[in-house]
Amino acid sequence: MSDIKQQALQCREAAQQIAQLSTDAKNALLRAMAAALEADEASILEANAADLSAAREKGLSGAMLDRLKLDARALAAVADALREVADLPDPVGLVTRRDVRPNGISVERVRVPLGVIAMIYEARPNVTADAAALCLKAGNGVILRGGSEAIRSNTAIAASLKRALRQAGLPDAALTLVTDLRREAMLELLQLTDIVDLAIPRGGEGLIRFVAEHARVPVIKHYKGVCHFFVDASADLELALRLLIDGKVSRPSACNSLETLLVHADIAGDFLPAAASALAERNVEIRGDARSSALMAGAKPVTEDDYAAEFLDLVIAVRVVDSLDEAIAHIHRYGSDHTEVIATRNEGNAERFVQSLRSAVVMVNASSRFSDGGELGLGAEIGISTTRLHAYGPMGLEALTVERFVVRGSGQTRNLP
Amino acid sequence: MSDIKQQALQCREAAQQIAQLSTDAKNALLRAMAAALEADEASILEANAADLSAAREKGLSGAMLDRLKLDARALAAVADALREVADLPDPVGLVTRRDVRPNGISVERVRVPLGVIAMIYEARPNVTADAAALCLKAGNGVILRGGSEAIRSNTAIAASLKRALRQAGLPDAALTLVTDLRREAMLELLQLTDIVDLAIPRGGEGLIRFVAEHARVPVIKHYKGVCHFFVDASADLELALRLLIDGKVSRPSACNSLETLLVHADIAGDFLPAAASALAERNVEIRGDARSSALMAGAKPVTEDDYAAEFLDLVIAVRVVDSLDEAIAHIHRYGSDHTEVIATRNEGNAERFVQSLRSAVVMVNASSRFSDGGELGLGAEIGISTTRLHAYGPMGLEALTVERFVVRGSGQTRNLP
Repeated sequence: MSDIKQQALQCREAAQQIAQLSTDAKNALLRAMAAALEADEASILEANAADLSAAREKGLSGAMLDRLKLDARALAAVADALREVADLPDPVGLVTRRDVRPNGISVERVRVPLGVIAMIYEARPNVTADAAALCLKAGNGVILRGGSEAIRSNTAIAASLKRALRQAGLPDAALTLVTDLRREAMLELLQLTDIVDLAIPRGGEGLIRFVAEHARVPVIKHYKGVCHFFVDASADLELALRLLIDGKVSRPSACNSLETLLVHADIAGDFLPAAASALAERNVEIRGDARSSALMAGAKPVTEDDYAAEFLDLVIAVRVVDSLDEAIAHIHRYGSDHTEVIATRNEGNAERFVQSLRSAVVMVNASSRFSDGGELGLGAEIGISTTRLHAYGPMGLEALTVERFVVRGSGQTRNLP
Repeated sequence: MSDIKQQALQCREAAQQIAQLSTDAKNALLRAMAAALEADEASILEANAADLSAAREKGLSGAMLDRLKLDARALAAVADALREVADLPDPVGLVTRRDVRPNGISVERVRVPLGVIAMIYEARPNVTADAAALCLKAGNGVILRGGSEAIRSNTAIAASLKRALRQAGLPDAALTLVTDLRREAMLELLQLTDIVDLAIPRGGEGLIRFVAEHARVPVIKHYKGVCHFFVDASADLELALRLLIDGKVSRPSACNSLETLLVHADIAGDFLPAAASALAERNVEIRGDARSSALMAGAKPVTEDDYAAEFLDLVIAVRVVDSLDEAIAHIHRYGSDHTEVIATRNEGNAERFVQSLRSAVVMVNASSRFSDGGELGLGAEIGISTTRLHAYGPMGLEALTVERFVVRGSGQTRNLP
């Protein structure tokens, strides 16, 4: 048997013990993990420094180095995040519905863990701890396969977390870090249909497509967030301008940032000149169609590709539309099913926007940047799904469980012959 | 573009209209479909007779012919089943949770359709109507790929249902019957990841494995139901005997029938002789381990393979165990995560049985035959999942939808820079 299959089997075995833990035991474990990270600060930061220096030698970009870098403050934030997960309600064992059938059997729907979750991710070493905490809290085993740039940091973090598992008398295989980073090993992991219950890839579109295309195990993912903002004819234009700036500028590298602005022709003349100067002030490059460009100083011509792009940068595509329907059609054509926003004072239009769009998150008069597990009240986020199955939109602890049936009777039979 | 992709795209296009329909419109559609089936009784039964005669020529088994056969009464039952689906509550648009965040945005979780569902099934022509009704009621498009034995029946049924769609002013591509039954066409359908949101195979283990192994689209399925019945030391033995007979004999070909009987050693001497004679009376073949065979007249020796088998027949595997833990370990080893039953008067043991097993349905003092969407209160059943993702256990209308987020604000921003 290959190493990776062996490790995965041990994780599955260990996961059965995690599934049985009480909420208190799981919370104590997560707090012990946080303490272990703090106790091991020196060795973790040393490992991270080695990753950083290797990354610099390989000539990685500044943005990559930023994502990779840990310091004492960042590590303390990782430990605090584990304590926050400990404070979240436990989804496991929750009875979501209870029904007594006419024949007297009681039927409960009860949340149980998924089993073994494989997290496939890139540079950020904090994912190692965050994802482990969420998977374990939801009663699962977790197999972590991070990027090669972060391997020393991930190994150090995993060592701390595994020590906390052992000290709690639990099998540390419940948290398994894959250290064989060859592509073939990842491919093998993604084929283990009887062992791995779910794979969640997080990172660039390239990684996610690789996982989605090669996995035989179920995958929940989103490729990209091409989020739209439609300013309706009846919009409060000051409110719309605030949503535009927050959505585009506050963190352009996030998947819930705005990529395309659609403006109703009736208010384009009022809105777009002000929008153009507010965007220009914040160094946002504007790519507009002919009608919007005529109203926006400094706009460049937009291309078809721009409308389908997730810029992840200070760039926005703009288009003037003649109706709500045209906006909806544009989003159907170019959207990624992630998050769409309308600014309007017309309730009927708000409802039609919400009903006509199939995206995971649809918002009325609120910033696209709220499309996030924490902001939407999930407590934490393991990923975002734009796949209409199991979970759709930001995923929290609950998305790491599934409902099953528990039936209690007093000897009822169905059709005793 | 291939025919099958073209058809699937048309189905997806049509599904967007189905997703927007009101509950009343969907219910009226289903009732019109029922009426259309009744109006077309002659042509449907004629098509079915042709299927049957072709099947007889091909030398299909009696059981296969039974599954294939429709008569006026069976067709009336199919039409009634459509009306029953019309009477079920509509899952689409249901607000499952509503929360106002500290910043004042309202966050709703709302059920939406999955999109396009591909049903892959074998001989039973009633599935054509049943599955179509459930998929459409949940706001989805449906692509139906039945077995070649039933192609004439399925085509006739689909023609009636499609006429009802057109008469309601709806695109009949929302219900698409695949008539190209070549294996390559099915393979192509199962690769359409951007068009088909879910495939549900129903039929023999061979078909289901073929679909699961070749699909790139998500698949929800169960391979088999190796359902266990554990008679605890404290069980009411009369009750246990009734559950045994109902579970094994009332419909041995069903996946929720019992395959293995586990009996606590303390009561084996009391229970097994009575069980043996009750089973023998009903022509059930007994395959036991040494300890149970000593107590059961006519028992044959059980093999390792028997414990993993879904007999789908009047055969039962038996084993005496020394403890609840041994029963649980047996089920972990040989089970299929479908349905397990304990007979006990000890509440602690009942709880431990429920908590220690990961199966989709776990029952205390009730017949395994209740592991069915209708019996458990789902109203109807599109399939059963033993995959711990999205749905686990019998799936009804709700499993054909997913929850998304609808956010309403008054101009809130996250971190306006």
